[in-house]
Amino acid sequence: MRIPELADIQAAHSRIKPFIHHTPVLKSQKLNELFNCELFFKCENFQKVGAFKFRGATNAVLLMSDEEKLKGVVTHSSGNHAAALALAARMNGIKANIVMPGNAPVVKKNAVAGYGAEITFCKPTLQAREETTRLIMERTGATLIHPYDNFNIICGQGTAALELLQEKGDLEIVIAPIGGGGLMSGTSTYVKGINKNIQVFGAEPLNANDAFISFTSGVLTPSVNPITCADGLLTSQSELTFTIIRNNVDRILTASEDSIIECMLLVWERMKIIIEPSSATVLAVVKENPGLFNGKKIGLIISGGNVDFRKLPF
Amino acid sequence: MRIPELADIQAAHSRIKPFIHHTPVLKSQKLNELFNCELFFKCENFQKVGAFKFRGATNAVLLMSDEEKLKGVVTHSSGNHAAALALAARMNGIKANIVMPGNAPVVKKNAVAGYGAEITFCKPTLQAREETTRLIMERTGATLIHPYDNFNIICGQGTAALELLQEKGDLEIVIAPIGGGGLMSGTSTYVKGINKNIQVFGAEPLNANDAFISFTSGVLTPSVNPITCADGLLTSQSELTFTIIRNNVDRILTASEDSIIECMLLVWERMKIIIEPSSATVLAVVKENPGLFNGKKIGLIISGGNVDFRKLPF
Repeated sequence: MRIPELADIQAAHSRIKPFIHHTPVLKSQKLNELFNCELFFKCENFQKVGAFKFRGATNAVLLMSDEEKLKGVVTHSSGNHAAALALAARMNGIKANIVMPGNAPVVKKNAVAGYGAEITFCKPTLQAREETTRLIMERTGATLIHPYDNFNIICGQGTAALELLQEKGDLEIVIAPIGGGGLMSGTSTYVKGINKNIQVFGAEPLNANDAFISFTSGVLTPSVNPITCADGLLTSQSELTFTIIRNNVDRILTASEDSIIECMLLVWERMKIIIEPSSATVLAVVKENPGLFNGKKIGLIISGGNVDFRKLPF
Repeated sequence: MRIPELADIQAAHSRIKPFIHHTPVLKSQKLNELFNCELFFKCENFQKVGAFKFRGATNAVLLMSDEEKLKGVVTHSSGNHAAALALAARMNGIKANIVMPGNAPVVKKNAVAGYGAEITFCKPTLQAREETTRLIMERTGATLIHPYDNFNIICGQGTAALELLQEKGDLEIVIAPIGGGGLMSGTSTYVKGINKNIQVFGAEPLNANDAFISFTSGVLTPSVNPITCADGLLTSQSELTFTIIRNNVDRILTASEDSIIECMLLVWERMKIIIEPSSATVLAVVKENPGLFNGKKIGLIISGGNVDFRKLPF
């Protein structure tokens, strides 16, 4: 199990820089007053495909050999990673095979198809997804690009924190959301690699608190059918991301569904930007734990902005 | 009736510049592809109070005499102008009296109250608003700052177009929404004053097409109880704004409610920014009239981003 280091993330950034958006770091005086701290939002909702996932996918695709590229890539995902891999593959002239459950939202199917990927539908179980993916790999020789259990993906995701700290080096705390742990692994590796004194916190829905339980107990504990509006945070960590997170993260905090929705709407209303519920989780843990954050300079990784406005959680 | 000129808008900009946000001009490759033209969004949704109205209100307040300032300001509005005047007054240590209908949305009452204005509620008729306003003026000597039938307001609103053209001078068309006509008056005065070859279009909901009818017939024709999701465009022009618009605007285009909502969602989904329905009207007229805009460089004044997410029009 190869663990990413600071230099790996720096190398990933040099590699993907020509292909990604350098997203802005935004501030809001009103939110600072409301939460009594200084918040710096690294806005990956403005990243290509509307999510940080494009960073990791681009890094993984660029590192494939010419021979691998000829055979294409495959992944199973119904979310932002599917769209990110589809676009990264297309930009490199590579075929992308995406395995999605047949009941995935039409808006997500359309997004992935719009990037030119070939979609294979399967039953909505992890077993069916993995089996379908395996069959495609056997048939085509395509390279599996896992959404987070992948060294190159993790290094790519860490580049959002790199840009954040390059722009705002005196942060005292950095918070990222945790689902499968790819973003959190890359973020924490970069932040602790640059400055051990910066605290790194993970943010998770209380209704999908498997990372909190794993972190606290020291035993990797997957979630079982969690129900949360933060649909990007349903997945569980892998051995790789769990190991990195245990090494680097100071604390994992949880937030209620009400806090997540309230904070998402606060950002929409006050900052006039669209963030998805998973991203609002980082602000929700600030709201729920004022004592930890009073007067502090805090970087928040806003993971994405893909919201289905016909199915709002409020 | 004093008509604003280019120099008046330039002077207004120098005056208000230290107090306003210099809002960004954003682009979207996806929307350019979709509409087959180059769109430049002047994002007044990121202006203070979430709307261009803060420009005019600030200009009007800064031009008051010391004696007038002591007696305060008054206006009747339940929308963005009320919040804008309340904040502009507070920033200048002036008392603001806002007349609102008792049935105004709580979110708007709270916004105005939050800026420290004194709210007087009245019946939801134009007559009641005007009478209540008159009584406040008699009692306090406060200066009436009308939302659009006001020279200084119009000059302030024109400064958004000034910043847009300073940043992007080679536009071929500029489009702004029309309600009472304050923004359109300021925008068209500035654009035609700088370059007569740039076409200036007004955008209006088909369901509130009084400006289109007035412009086409040459007779100022108020709207009668229009029903549109573009709640910033319910008002009718005054003699002053009608005169300016007749002189400067090349064309007024209308858009259906469906187009307005579709284009608002397109901007939310593709650009990840919140714009209000009134602002989406400018994109909706591009969508409905592709022949006019194919291959052109077009500036769109995005008027604001104040949306009540608990009462969405879709």
